[in-house]
Amino acid sequence: MNIVISGIGIIGGSFAKAIKKYTDHYVIGINRSRQPLEDALKCGAIDEIGSRESLQKADLMILGTFPQAAVEFVERNAELIPKSCIVMDTSGIKSEICPKLTALSEQYGFTFVGCHPMAGKEKNGFAASDADLFSGASCILVPCGADERSVEKIAALAETLGFGKIVYASAEEHDRMIAFTSQLPHVIACSYVMSPVCPKHKGFSAGSYRDVSRVAHINEKLWAELFLENKEPLLDEIQILIDNLTAVKNAVDKGNKEELEELLAKSRKVKEELGE
Amino acid sequence: MNIVISGIGIIGGSFAKAIKKYTDHYVIGINRSRQPLEDALKCGAIDEIGSRESLQKADLMILGTFPQAAVEFVERNAELIPKSCIVMDTSGIKSEICPKLTALSEQYGFTFVGCHPMAGKEKNGFAASDADLFSGASCILVPCGADERSVEKIAALAETLGFGKIVYASAEEHDRMIAFTSQLPHVIACSYVMSPVCPKHKGFSAGSYRDVSRVAHINEKLWAELFLENKEPLLDEIQILIDNLTAVKNAVDKGNKEELEELLAKSRKVKEELGE
Repeated sequence: MNIVISGIGIIGGSFAKAIKKYTDHYVIGINRSRQPLEDALKCGAIDEIGSRESLQKADLMILGTFPQAAVEFVERNAELIPKSCIVMDTSGIKSEICPKLTALSEQYGFTFVGCHPMAGKEKNGFAASDADLFSGASCILVPCGADERSVEKIAALAETLGFGKIVYASAEEHDRMIAFTSQLPHVIACSYVMSPVCPKHKGFSAGSYRDVSRVAHINEKLWAELFLENKEPLLDEIQILIDNLTAVKNAVDKGNKEELEELLAKSRKVKEELGE
Repeated sequence: MNIVISGIGIIGGSFAKAIKKYTDHYVIGINRSRQPLEDALKCGAIDEIGSRESLQKADLMILGTFPQAAVEFVERNAELIPKSCIVMDTSGIKSEICPKLTALSEQYGFTFVGCHPMAGKEKNGFAASDADLFSGASCILVPCGADERSVEKIAALAETLGFGKIVYASAEEHDRMIAFTSQLPHVIACSYVMSPVCPKHKGFSAGSYRDVSRVAHINEKLWAELFLENKEPLLDEIQILIDNLTAVKNAVDKGNKEELEELLAKSRKVKEELGE
């Protein structure tokens, strides 16, 4: 296949590297700025630096940019995308962009499959990309009405690239789960490190601090966009968390040991039932 | 030295194993139940199963039990502790128990030094203990008026056992920092996994979920005691967190991208300034 990747950051770059490492496909990179493309060409992550014209020979197009930028890229270039091409996004939110991309695919004849690789780092850009970033990770596919054969093609590629699990979901189901599993931990980490005590933590901290604060090293432009494009599910999860924090707080405040132990035991059981 | 360890759980057991691995000291174990002592003797973590009479030959006594249990153990056996003995606790809170242990040391003539090894796991008991649990970790010492030579002796032992850093603090300073670095992450983890979405997370989660939820696998009896014995600093930190979560929530609710980016950028800068 000729695979065109638009956006050679950590995700697009990792797809490029994994495709070159694990398959024989030909990879063409497109990016707003030139440097990542030259770095990617130099290290063999891509075979060619492309332009919008490259889309005409694409069998697969992977969108590695921010969500709205991905939609805009496809809107601007839709007439160049062959009808035989599968377009796959990699965004962290789905309801906000999948219907737009599906509508474009119906209008121009190509196929669109939503994809969210559950992998990342608290770093960005091509320099942070890694051929094995997806190793063992979950790949969420949001078919959006695409034909079965195209979806299976993407699933097979994902397995070849090292993903450990393929999960299918609707856009709404994806966004509801992601609000909890990914967005809320980022909101927590950022809110946590805002305590006035945080800058003095060294010498007084260990694994608990490290783990809860890790993703506060955030790309604020990307995550502000992701949060606002998944507003209702995220607001729900933040409120649920505040309610649960308040329950613990009230038990501590009342000095009610039995109630506190009960609350904590419930949490332990959730983890135990998950085998974690 | 003859070192008596009271409470052969994960912390007491790890001290025993580390002392046998890295020093020539003689270790005597005391525990409420018999099994951990037999396991410890069998694997060479202790040299002898002791009784309260063993305290009479102790040069150092390490308290590995829950905080209140540690105080009660010393109260019950204070008259057996030699005046030359240093008693060291390992509790996660200090203001609640250090004054009591210091008063007992003054009454009976032994020396008390508060100690909090900043290491642990989301598992408990002797089976979870490890000779290298403290490797590179911070050891917080709360001297509580002990003479300099005794404090230095504990610090030197801690370095020999693999601790990477010795930090000195007052009981109040310790408790204020620990409320943020250790207790709040446990409150967060437990509150987080109480979302009704949590049991369905598999396939939709990655590192962010794993890290923030890890310590929800909690020992509720230990942590309920620790929370209640550090009530005011913990209540402060929970409230600060709720306020910061609410600020993010409001920015998302208003759809105010600029305000949201500013909030997230502030958090990123806290981490960057810490070099994390």
